[in-house]
Amino acid sequence: MKFSSKIERCGLSPMRKFHPYALAAEAKGRKIYHLNIGQPDIETPAAFFDAVRGFHQPVLEYAPSAGVPVFLEAVKEYYDRLDIHFDTADMLATTGGSEALEIALACILDDGDEILIPEPFYPNYNTFVQVTGGSIHPIPTTPEEGYHYAERAKIESQINEHTRAIMVTNPGNPTGAVLTREEMRMIVDIAKEHDLFVIGDEVYREFVYGGEKLASLAEFPDAAENVIIIDSVSKRFSACGARVGVLISRNKELMAHAMKICQGRLCSATLDQIGAAALYTVDDSYFAKVREEYKRRRDTAMAKLKEIPGVVCECPKGAFYIMAALPVDDADRFQTWLLEEFEDHGDTVMFAPGESFYATPGKGKNEIRIAYVLKQTDLERAMDLLALGIEAYNKRG
Amino acid sequence: MKFSSKIERCGLSPMRKFHPYALAAEAKGRKIYHLNIGQPDIETPAAFFDAVRGFHQPVLEYAPSAGVPVFLEAVKEYYDRLDIHFDTADMLATTGGSEALEIALACILDDGDEILIPEPFYPNYNTFVQVTGGSIHPIPTTPEEGYHYAERAKIESQINEHTRAIMVTNPGNPTGAVLTREEMRMIVDIAKEHDLFVIGDEVYREFVYGGEKLASLAEFPDAAENVIIIDSVSKRFSACGARVGVLISRNKELMAHAMKICQGRLCSATLDQIGAAALYTVDDSYFAKVREEYKRRRDTAMAKLKEIPGVVCECPKGAFYIMAALPVDDADRFQTWLLEEFEDHGDTVMFAPGESFYATPGKGKNEIRIAYVLKQTDLERAMDLLALGIEAYNKRG
Repeated sequence: MKFSSKIERCGLSPMRKFHPYALAAEAKGRKIYHLNIGQPDIETPAAFFDAVRGFHQPVLEYAPSAGVPVFLEAVKEYYDRLDIHFDTADMLATTGGSEALEIALACILDDGDEILIPEPFYPNYNTFVQVTGGSIHPIPTTPEEGYHYAERAKIESQINEHTRAIMVTNPGNPTGAVLTREEMRMIVDIAKEHDLFVIGDEVYREFVYGGEKLASLAEFPDAAENVIIIDSVSKRFSACGARVGVLISRNKELMAHAMKICQGRLCSATLDQIGAAALYTVDDSYFAKVREEYKRRRDTAMAKLKEIPGVVCECPKGAFYIMAALPVDDADRFQTWLLEEFEDHGDTVMFAPGESFYATPGKGKNEIRIAYVLKQTDLERAMDLLALGIEAYNKRG
Repeated sequence: MKFSSKIERCGLSPMRKFHPYALAAEAKGRKIYHLNIGQPDIETPAAFFDAVRGFHQPVLEYAPSAGVPVFLEAVKEYYDRLDIHFDTADMLATTGGSEALEIALACILDDGDEILIPEPFYPNYNTFVQVTGGSIHPIPTTPEEGYHYAERAKIESQINEHTRAIMVTNPGNPTGAVLTREEMRMIVDIAKEHDLFVIGDEVYREFVYGGEKLASLAEFPDAAENVIIIDSVSKRFSACGARVGVLISRNKELMAHAMKICQGRLCSATLDQIGAAALYTVDDSYFAKVREEYKRRRDTAMAKLKEIPGVVCECPKGAFYIMAALPVDDADRFQTWLLEEFEDHGDTVMFAPGESFYATPGKGKNEIRIAYVLKQTDLERAMDLLALGIEAYNKRG
């Protein structure tokens, strides 16, 4: 049977290939410390479950295609508190930030079109872009420069006649890079000058550790036609399994196109939207506590990394990831070796090898992404295992 | 700003255009009887809500990309009871049948490819197909023949070098047509002979009113490589708002491609899958009762339709829709008139005008789809309003 050329160009999750090795290691009795997954361990606020349990209609009906009004109102009020003002008509509730992005890209990209994305980037962007027939054009960065991409010349030099949009994850996955307001302004200006969309994947907005004001590309009303925001409750409230996101733009033509897809798939899950609306009632002390917890973990992971000779890494300002270059020949091979050959008191460690975060072939070979979503003691042990592993790997025969 | 040519070809829901007229009618105090929406009024089994309320994990985590195991097992066992046997690896849990179809089409269709679909068909198929760059090639039918499409010559005459798949909704939306086992065999044979996929959208499987055995295109194991099943809990258990569906195929290459998209969007909602699994514990008496209720409604609607002079319509065998040709010049214009000009004791009625169910321009102009999801007394009143409306519309000056 013949398949779509677009799906042929997509790949399975690059993490999958380590799954059999992990299973084999566990079968040998190894305990694996997971620095490879972005699933937060923070408790989901009880407000979600309370709202879901409080649903007492006899029929679980379709939600409106645009979203359950109480959820859209909750998101609008959340942005109002950030002094960023939308109408609920600027929003469409989606099945996670993932669907928001799928819909936005389907509206924008045609076969042969390009979207600029700083690399390293979240690998699932590949699938979302490939199925449209478009492709990712990377904005190159280096670990030595702390993966800094927000320079006008660096971005503009990558724009060509195929470029339709610039997309940034801010705060960044996998780099933890956080844009300053001036940098956001500059990116928005580039988009305006070149008649491009600028997509801000801002699902990690709350996860900033330098006392920064919570920020959004939507803060620049003069770029209303250009800016698209991808948002989600997944990370904000540790509610990944709810699959509730939101696509936001003041560009009415874009939203009319997006509505076609929303109507086509009828709606996002009704109960989860009701639960998600309730999440927005948690007060700021929730975020303060979560932020403090992650900041402590980041500092722990960074302190441990700095002790490892040859590691190249700047302290990330946000999200819950660290991208680092290791003194190893190949992070993929190192990961396989950690699972097959290494152990310290029966323990080993997993991370996300860096190559899959790059579009440029060969880049990221000695880099890894660390997700610091483990509790303090486990994180310390995991980082020690990484250090011990690097030493042993480079000493092996 | 420039948008994707694919999204430009998609349309908003054709029902939307009547929304302002309906609002205006309600503002004038009119009561509208809705024969236009496929939202069942049957209660969702309590098992769903019980399972959701029984979830007590502290973190609402991502589900596995392929689906929550307890849900996949429940679906497998449901099919086992129908004597249709799958591995859970043949299934991917999706966000409603809609996402199952989106994923299947994204795996199959390339720009310029065609999928054969008997018309009239569910209008949202247009969006799902258009975003792939492919197009719907209709298999024509007529109201006079009861929308019958399952003839070898009729289907084969539409196959050309661009044809990649045949898709049928069985039982049918909007026609209520139900395939015999021989017809299913024939369609599967055509797919095999021409090396095509055959997609069975079987979300209305339980809704058959002639004592038929519950059927599936998956009953023919010799066509394992060709057959794709779209399934969902939405109609089966009146749980539309759960958005839990399943993509099923024994074609391993297809499922590997589909998994790329499933991993890209991470997962479907965790709690809804847990609730959906519990739905499969309801016993057959539930379906017997629901079937009896819908059969009574179908018979009521049909009896009323038969009393209207000039209506062309055969009794549908399944789903909860009737497609009929009316003795009016234009069903769109008739609907607008019903909302703007007509009333009987302050009441009026809405249906789905037929044109949007066709790919062939101009077809379906005097046809409508009736969804008999109203309780008996409301349904009778709605059908009487339709009859009164037709009479008055054709007598107007």
